[in-house]
Amino acid sequence: LAEDEQTEVRRFLESLELADVASVIEELPQGDDLTAIRLLSLHDQAELIGHFRASAQVSVAERLGKWELVSLMGAMSHDERADLFKQLDETAQEMLLPALSKAEREDLRRLSAHEEWTVGSVMTSDYAVLAPELTSTDAITALRRQALDAETIYYAYIIGESRELLGVVSLRDLLTAPPRQRVADIMDTEPVLVHVNDPQEAAARRVARYDLLALPVLDEDDRLVGIVTADDAMDVSEEEVTEDFHKGSTIQRFDMSVADATITKLYRARIFWLVLLVFGNIFSGAGIAYFEETIAAHLSLLFFLPLLIASGGNAGTQSATLMVRALATGDVRLRDFGRLLSREVAIAVALGVTMAAAVWLIGIWRGGIEVAIVVAIAMITIVLLGALIGMSLPFIFAILEKDPAAASGPLVTSLADVLGVIIYFTIASVLLI
Amino acid sequence: LAEDEQTEVRRFLESLELADVASVIEELPQGDDLTAIRLLSLHDQAELIGHFRASAQVSVAERLGKWELVSLMGAMSHDERADLFKQLDETAQEMLLPALSKAEREDLRRLSAHEEWTVGSVMTSDYAVLAPELTSTDAITALRRQALDAETIYYAYIIGESRELLGVVSLRDLLTAPPRQRVADIMDTEPVLVHVNDPQEAAARRVARYDLLALPVLDEDDRLVGIVTADDAMDVSEEEVTEDFHKGSTIQRFDMSVADATITKLYRARIFWLVLLVFGNIFSGAGIAYFEETIAAHLSLLFFLPLLIASGGNAGTQSATLMVRALATGDVRLRDFGRLLSREVAIAVALGVTMAAAVWLIGIWRGGIEVAIVVAIAMITIVLLGALIGMSLPFIFAILEKDPAAASGPLVTSLADVLGVIIYFTIASVLLI
Repeated sequence: LAEDEQTEVRRFLESLELADVASVIEELPQGDDLTAIRLLSLHDQAELIGHFRASAQVSVAERLGKWELVSLMGAMSHDERADLFKQLDETAQEMLLPALSKAEREDLRRLSAHEEWTVGSVMTSDYAVLAPELTSTDAITALRRQALDAETIYYAYIIGESRELLGVVSLRDLLTAPPRQRVADIMDTEPVLVHVNDPQEAAARRVARYDLLALPVLDEDDRLVGIVTADDAMDVSEEEVTEDFHKGSTIQRFDMSVADATITKLYRARIFWLVLLVFGNIFSGAGIAYFEETIAAHLSLLFFLPLLIASGGNAGTQSATLMVRALATGDVRLRDFGRLLSREVAIAVALGVTMAAAVWLIGIWRGGIEVAIVVAIAMITIVLLGALIGMSLPFIFAILEKDPAAASGPLVTSLADVLGVIIYFTIASVLLI
Repeated sequence: LAEDEQTEVRRFLESLELADVASVIEELPQGDDLTAIRLLSLHDQAELIGHFRASAQVSVAERLGKWELVSLMGAMSHDERADLFKQLDETAQEMLLPALSKAEREDLRRLSAHEEWTVGSVMTSDYAVLAPELTSTDAITALRRQALDAETIYYAYIIGESRELLGVVSLRDLLTAPPRQRVADIMDTEPVLVHVNDPQEAAARRVARYDLLALPVLDEDDRLVGIVTADDAMDVSEEEVTEDFHKGSTIQRFDMSVADATITKLYRARIFWLVLLVFGNIFSGAGIAYFEETIAAHLSLLFFLPLLIASGGNAGTQSATLMVRALATGDVRLRDFGRLLSREVAIAVALGVTMAAAVWLIGIWRGGIEVAIVVAIAMITIVLLGALIGMSLPFIFAILEKDPAAASGPLVTSLADVLGVIIYFTIASVLLI
């Protein structure tokens, strides 16, 4: 880029939000992306890199000069800095560490030490703190001084001598309190909090449930070690929802983006359930083999087999999805089961009758009135049982303290398949012979 | 509840967060719930009722006295008040309206007028405003006065004479600005915003993407009419995710909680796709009918039919889910298709070979080496094609400007079923005769 072009590009980038700048720069060819990044202020660069996806962050970090990277990391928010550091390879990490300040090294070490999927892995350590004896006016002045470095100043944390959490106060409460009132008298001494080894979704759920802007994180000795901010909680929710989506189609959790994932990672995440379901489906095959005589006598029955077993699976998948999601959001609780079960029976019968009516004429055309009757009765029974399996499975998993989301579509479909084969040919062998 | 019990209950409730109080009170028998609610301050009551699910809100509102309800609604946040009002039946609405102040009536009318799923239906009108000529110090004083009524004071909106949005300023920026600097010089004059008739997910997406605490909402004439706060945006995200879950198992959108939904509502949301898929599966039946001779000659082939067609559906459902979710979060973009397709081929072949190996011995046992070879080749082909269908369908939908989430498991499974039948019996009729 020539000098005068750079001015234009800078003006263009400055007219955008940083999240959009990140999307634009990620698309630039290598080299040009560094040039564009360097057009921004250090403060903007630090925020910008947090918007990149992981692979782009690492690629940029590896191509920056050592001291450039050190000053960039100094300006980044503590959690994003730790995330970036963890992604770098060992050589880069070892080159970087001595160049950082002692406080930065310590902070990196602490934040990087936490296991994935725990609160510790998503918290940040740049929170605002206040002394309990400050007046509200002095507290606001103190927050003003921390505004540049702290992730948020809208909540401040009051800690004792051994970093134990005494309370939380919001800037709103400080502003509306009488000027000479002490922080200790305004603060909430029993705030909603979370522990560093709790699963990360605990933090996300609490932020959402209690409408918080941030949540304090304590270690095993109840000392304050970080906060989870609302925007990071939202990112965690998104990750957890993605996990639920994947579980719903028998994909096991993997720790990176789909776009970046390797063939091996995706193969491992997918193969377990696929093979397990293959063996599950052998029962359907065994069911068919058991009725081989009935089938040989009425080959026209086979025409309706895919349609009938698929319908049970489809209705069951619908029911399972409705329940998995409602249990996840808290819309439905375990004790609602009885009430919902009777409603589900009514809905499933209505669905089954409609679907039986839809295939009635085809039944007559392909196999005569008798086959049509078999198909219609089988359809209603299979849809009803499929729906009941789909509805009950998430509750059963929840009672066994497994994740209801494991009551996936493919699992429900496989169960419905086996039952469908047995029901269909049983009805056929009773009515047609 | 006796007098002294009431004191104890009040103390217990006050030790809880209001969201938890709401869960407790929702479980109380009718009558006791009102007694418990009345133990709280009006301010807490107003916040509490916002935490109830819709059906509980209406039940409580209908049993409160008229003037009690009016003062409660006066204390509620504007968006929650409007939501409650919309749920009431017409008689209750008409009884209530004359008792409200003119400003409240106007506000209710405006907020209730917006169509469901639009930004207007989730925004609130109790935002903080500032005049552009105020100094930062005076602006903070002005926000302090608005703190009781405004949903948030961490962002304030600067509007001109005809309510056009001039800019947005954060309390953080006001606090860190020099005391005599004017709001007009600090404010962001090109804030991220949204329009009142945009779909509600536009607001949720922007809040998440730009890490905002609130988002201004403009009407068609670019006047400020409300804000969407981060916690409401999170609720919208949750609703939208629920919709995506439902779509992924062919359930159409319905406008209430699963727990509250009527039989008719759920029937309507489910029947359309179920019947459509029934007709789709007729093609699988036709496929089987076409190969009736091959089947009659080798009835043992039927044993493997459910297993093979289910495997294609399962692998395809996995691929579809991975892509639908990655497209929804922005992890994958349309132009990534080519790169991901070749990766998917490699993964699917690996999956297919593993699954073929898993059934190999059973193939030999049930039908001899020839059948085992047919089943193995069919398995690899079907899994590969299932995975490619599952992966491509979301992209095709996106290119056609349909929601990729409509590339649901059941749809992918139905397509894989048809192909599975044709592939399996074609291979069998070629190799076995």
